[in-house]
Amino acid sequence: MIISMRPHATREEIDHVCERIREFGYKVHSIEGEERVVIGVVGVGDVTACLESLEATPGVERAMRISAPYKFVSREFKKEHSAIRVNGLEVGGDEFIVMAGPCSVESERQIMETAEGVAAAGARMLRGGAFKPRTSPYDFQGLELEGLKLLRKAKEATGLGIITEIMSDRDVDLVAEYTDCMQVGARNMQNFALLKSLGGCGRPVLLKRGMSSTIKELLMSAEYIVAHGNPNVILCERGIRTFEDYVRNTLPLAIVPELHRRSHLPVVVDPSHGTGKSNLVTDMSKASVACGADGLIIEVHNDPAHAMTDGAQSLTPQQFADMMKAVKRIATAVDREV
Amino acid sequence: MIISMRPHATREEIDHVCERIREFGYKVHSIEGEERVVIGVVGVGDVTACLESLEATPGVERAMRISAPYKFVSREFKKEHSAIRVNGLEVGGDEFIVMAGPCSVESERQIMETAEGVAAAGARMLRGGAFKPRTSPYDFQGLELEGLKLLRKAKEATGLGIITEIMSDRDVDLVAEYTDCMQVGARNMQNFALLKSLGGCGRPVLLKRGMSSTIKELLMSAEYIVAHGNPNVILCERGIRTFEDYVRNTLPLAIVPELHRRSHLPVVVDPSHGTGKSNLVTDMSKASVACGADGLIIEVHNDPAHAMTDGAQSLTPQQFADMMKAVKRIATAVDREV
Amino acid sequence: MIISMRPHATREEIDHVCERIREFGYKVHSIEGEERVVIGVVGVGDVTACLESLEATPGVERAMRISAPYKFVSREFKKEHSAIRVNGLEVGGDEFIVMAGPCSVESERQIMETAEGVAAAGARMLRGGAFKPRTSPYDFQGLELEGLKLLRKAKEATGLGIITEIMSDRDVDLVAEYTDCMQVGARNMQNFALLKSLGGCGRPVLLKRGMSSTIKELLMSAEYIVAHGNPNVILCERGIRTFEDYVRNTLPLAIVPELHRRSHLPVVVDPSHGTGKSNLVTDMSKASVACGADGLIIEVHNDPAHAMTDGAQSLTPQQFADMMKAVKRIATAVDREV
Amino acid sequence: MIISMRPHATREEIDHVCERIREFGYKVHSIEGEERVVIGVVGVGDVTACLESLEATPGVERAMRISAPYKFVSREFKKEHSAIRVNGLEVGGDEFIVMAGPCSVESERQIMETAEGVAAAGARMLRGGAFKPRTSPYDFQGLELEGLKLLRKAKEATGLGIITEIMSDRDVDLVAEYTDCMQVGARNMQNFALLKSLGGCGRPVLLKRGMSSTIKELLMSAEYIVAHGNPNVILCERGIRTFEDYVRNTLPLAIVPELHRRSHLPVVVDPSHGTGKSNLVTDMSKASVACGADGLIIEVHNDPAHAMTDGAQSLTPQQFADMMKAVKRIATAVDREV
Repeated sequence: MIISMRPHATREEIDHVCERIREFGYKVHSIEGEERVVIGVVGVGDVTACLESLEATPGVERAMRISAPYKFVSREFKKEHSAIRVNGLEVGGDEFIVMAGPCSVESERQIMETAEGVAAAGARMLRGGAFKPRTSPYDFQGLELEGLKLLRKAKEATGLGIITEIMSDRDVDLVAEYTDCMQVGARNMQNFALLKSLGGCGRPVLLKRGMSSTIKELLMSAEYIVAHGNPNVILCERGIRTFEDYVRNTLPLAIVPELHRRSHLPVVVDPSHGTGKSNLVTDMSKASVACGADGLIIEVHNDPAHAMTDGAQSLTPQQFADMMKAVKRIATAVDREV
Repeated sequence: MIISMRPHATREEIDHVCERIREFGYKVHSIEGEERVVIGVVGVGDVTACLESLEATPGVERAMRISAPYKFVSREFKKEHSAIRVNGLEVGGDEFIVMAGPCSVESERQIMETAEGVAAAGARMLRGGAFKPRTSPYDFQGLELEGLKLLRKAKEATGLGIITEIMSDRDVDLVAEYTDCMQVGARNMQNFALLKSLGGCGRPVLLKRGMSSTIKELLMSAEYIVAHGNPNVILCERGIRTFEDYVRNTLPLAIVPELHRRSHLPVVVDPSHGTGKSNLVTDMSKASVACGADGLIIEVHNDPAHAMTDGAQSLTPQQFADMMKAVKRIATAVDREV
Repeated sequence: MIISMRPHATREEIDHVCERIREFGYKVHSIEGEERVVIGVVGVGDVTACLESLEATPGVERAMRISAPYKFVSREFKKEHSAIRVNGLEVGGDEFIVMAGPCSVESERQIMETAEGVAAAGARMLRGGAFKPRTSPYDFQGLELEGLKLLRKAKEATGLGIITEIMSDRDVDLVAEYTDCMQVGARNMQNFALLKSLGGCGRPVLLKRGMSSTIKELLMSAEYIVAHGNPNVILCERGIRTFEDYVRNTLPLAIVPELHRRSHLPVVVDPSHGTGKSNLVTDMSKASVACGADGLIIEVHNDPAHAMTDGAQSLTPQQFADMMKAVKRIATAVDREV
Repeated sequence: MIISMRPHATREEIDHVCERIREFGYKVHSIEGEERVVIGVVGVGDVTACLESLEATPGVERAMRISAPYKFVSREFKKEHSAIRVNGLEVGGDEFIVMAGPCSVESERQIMETAEGVAAAGARMLRGGAFKPRTSPYDFQGLELEGLKLLRKAKEATGLGIITEIMSDRDVDLVAEYTDCMQVGARNMQNFALLKSLGGCGRPVLLKRGMSSTIKELLMSAEYIVAHGNPNVILCERGIRTFEDYVRNTLPLAIVPELHRRSHLPVVVDPSHGTGKSNLVTDMSKASVACGADGLIIEVHNDPAHAMTDGAQSLTPQQFADMMKAVKRIATAVDREV
């Protein structure tokens, strides 16, 4: 920690701050500048509590954390890239993994046709929502248990592993029974009750970044899951909310190499939500593999114009097959298998 | 709804779109411009499903909703301003209601001293967190049941109504037993499982805007609670996330009159989270009452420099008392009681 | 400055960084933590150059400036609040100053009628654009010299001081001849050629914050004008660009007290651009005076529905008169004259 | 245009709006919905003036433009992709063009060494600033004319075309004499006086997006240059300002295919400013070529740790050579020459 005092802080204020720091078990290094005093804090203690306390102490201008607040998910904790096993595959290994499928499971015919389409084009996992987070209480909320059963059926037919969203800690056991990977949506990235319960769910978790969450907050949410017992977390970028209005979300791909630098966990990109426009998905998929993503999660629907949700950002199976060809060429150019 | 076709959409594409719209039960008005065709859609049907379907239909450039997607919370539904009863008070009535207290309940002494301090200065409700949403799994998570009991004790001593945060649908019954008003934090504004369960909780709900949620999303989340049976919702602005770095959050007060224009529900402002800096809280409180807010929710701690959470944005009881004096003067200038 | 080294920086890297710092004329205080080394830098030198150099030096994680980069505009440089004289008035003095008038000067009748209307209601300066920054090259670009002459005529008739926008360093002398205060628009806040030339213009300058500029950047742009010879700068907040879509811009009023804390310069708010909606202007004006602004700049048009620019955010003279009554009541409640 | 009336607009209000529209020379199509009236506007007229006027007319809820406000730069105006000739090269042609060099020209040795380094690695143009936009008046402002002369010297030695920034309309003739391409920085994207003067400068212009400008505003600024006589505009994305704090700017690459969809102009990406971190530049360069950019502009310095500006985001010539190898592999995978 570094504590920067106000320019005209008094000697009493400075002494009082140093005393407060020592109460938390730290050592103090005070640096007297021309204009102000800066205090370096060394040792082991409760950083957050100390910071918050100091920020409210008279004479303090700013209290800054220097070390990262996450441990288990950090690159310092584990040097090698983690490969997470999901249904016999490795996400984060040599293979670039594409997950694809509809936003919502709507009917047996829809999910079976889509699953077969994406499997034929090279997808390795099937996505599909049974519990849907909808902005409006009047919109379709998902088929729930019936949807989970249809996903299982699609898995039996195609061999594709299943990934589906979990929205409440109440449903963890139920969803875990049917799926290979639990997906946490952007709106639930800081639903801490849910994160804690996923620590014991026995399934890998794909954790999406919140639409205005910082990289630190994303890694702290992953830390919640790991600290509660589940080391198998896949990070997912799905776009952030900005002033840009030609896309539903702004997709900031620099987070992919930055996450790899800070963490050993695999990183997957969702260009469907990351743009909200089907005609931008292929180009952003190509960019994602080019900059080092470990995989993609893509919305594909056998008939987007009749989709109950997210039609505007869904590819047809044919468009998805074309996208896969383009992605494979780039994957080869970055020494990655698809 | 208005559907704008691409400049060179074909006659077949236009006809197909009109047909799709009629399938949803709507009537179609087609307008042929110099450059493109625009289609007006009239009638009653499933707007969201129709919009999403059309956005994925060939030839469509943009599909726009014209009418508001919320009903019960809208000003059209109820012309008069709603006053929500909480512990014998009315939020949204003539009186300007100030809720105050610590971020977290930490100890009996802390909550009792703070409660007495804020009551003496004119606060009408006591806030305090028993379940805490924390970015880090290693930080203090709240006293939970013990905290709820201490809040009840403070109520018995001071008569102040209690408002406290609810983080999971699992805890709704427990928290409802101890509190007068359920607070939904910004991170849970779209925790739809939680919103649904609050529909039946029997307590008024203070719903905070998410840090990157639109005004429409806030009203839709309020609509969830009302549509599930609970009409007693208080809206709360607590700041949004922007590029600004001198504050923890940016407080956009124009939302106060805009919410009043769109909705009959009361609107409260949280300048403590809305700035993150105790030295900005008083000025933003004054601005809030000046622009028409129905109340404030303020963090006050008997000893901010020893607070376990949010010390930097907490007022001391003395600072709070000074703030109340300033707020009262402005309240009088806008014909509001405090 | 504080330099935080990477966790596993080598001794050679640390020594090299210390050497680089000393080359810039600073002294070094090295703090050895459990996890990393942090280096405190003390003395006087070229901070920006040193920071940028260090950020590119191997082993460095982050280089942070502690002291403020501005001097003349800072509160440390001048303790008392500055009052800037404009046409016999003081902006930043005891009186709360309201500037009002149309977005663009359009015709003699329009500017004369509007000027008389706002003067009668209590405005103390007349705003009006002769050179207009327009997003489109095909839109009305202003009456230019003709507009300046009409402004002078309106001044002669009403006695109101004139404030008008300057868009290019080429026009500084011309505009200075006709106006009492030079206005720099948000799009030109970092037009450094213009800022430099305003240092010698002989008129006070009202400097609007850029729509995504930080508080530091605003103060640095003010510093440009002062450092080039003109100490008479009025700061103006006019809203920032965020994801919010019910307003043209988001008006973050906490910047008002924060600017007062950091700088001695007066602060004025523009709620017309700050919201983009005439029906939000009055409430935001009330909030501005409540939180300590020194004045307002308001768009008023004698016939908004026939305005050539910004009709949607312009008040009628009658609406403006009503607003002034409300503003006066709040001004009294914060011990300010209007 | 589409005009959406308020739910309870009166018949008089609706008639008055229709009359106003006809005054502008348009035809009116009125659609009576269950809840409100929507008015379609057809014909040719002054769209902006009409929209602004209507937004201020009683009873109107929202007035929306449907057609794009730009003409010459639009894909509708010119179907084929434009290739802009610069110093014998084509930007926007088959070849993927990399421009590289230091942020600022600092000395003869620096610019010559860097120019030779980037030329050897495959760069096709040399960038370097002689006039520098600096946040602080106390920071290095560029070598100005001396810098331009050094750039010419580097061109003579290496054959690389020169691109350098122009900051004021006063300097257009001077800069045009020394450079092959005029660069407009993000802070000047809406410096309309400068844009107009570039219409007659006789050199192609690389126009960077402002850090909070919309895609429409970028294209309108390009339209300014074209409408004033210069069709040779290259668009450049250099990152936007968001809440993200691990980068200096957020690089939103989906704008690349979206610009190609809307405009025939070439699109170049600046990942140096687009991230602000040298260790992210290579990955973002790879992503840029993968998603269809026509070129890159990269900061390279022969000795970043001693750079006077932007050291933290500059590559060394060796890092740049490695980057070029990676970029070439991806270019091949998208059928592009380097």
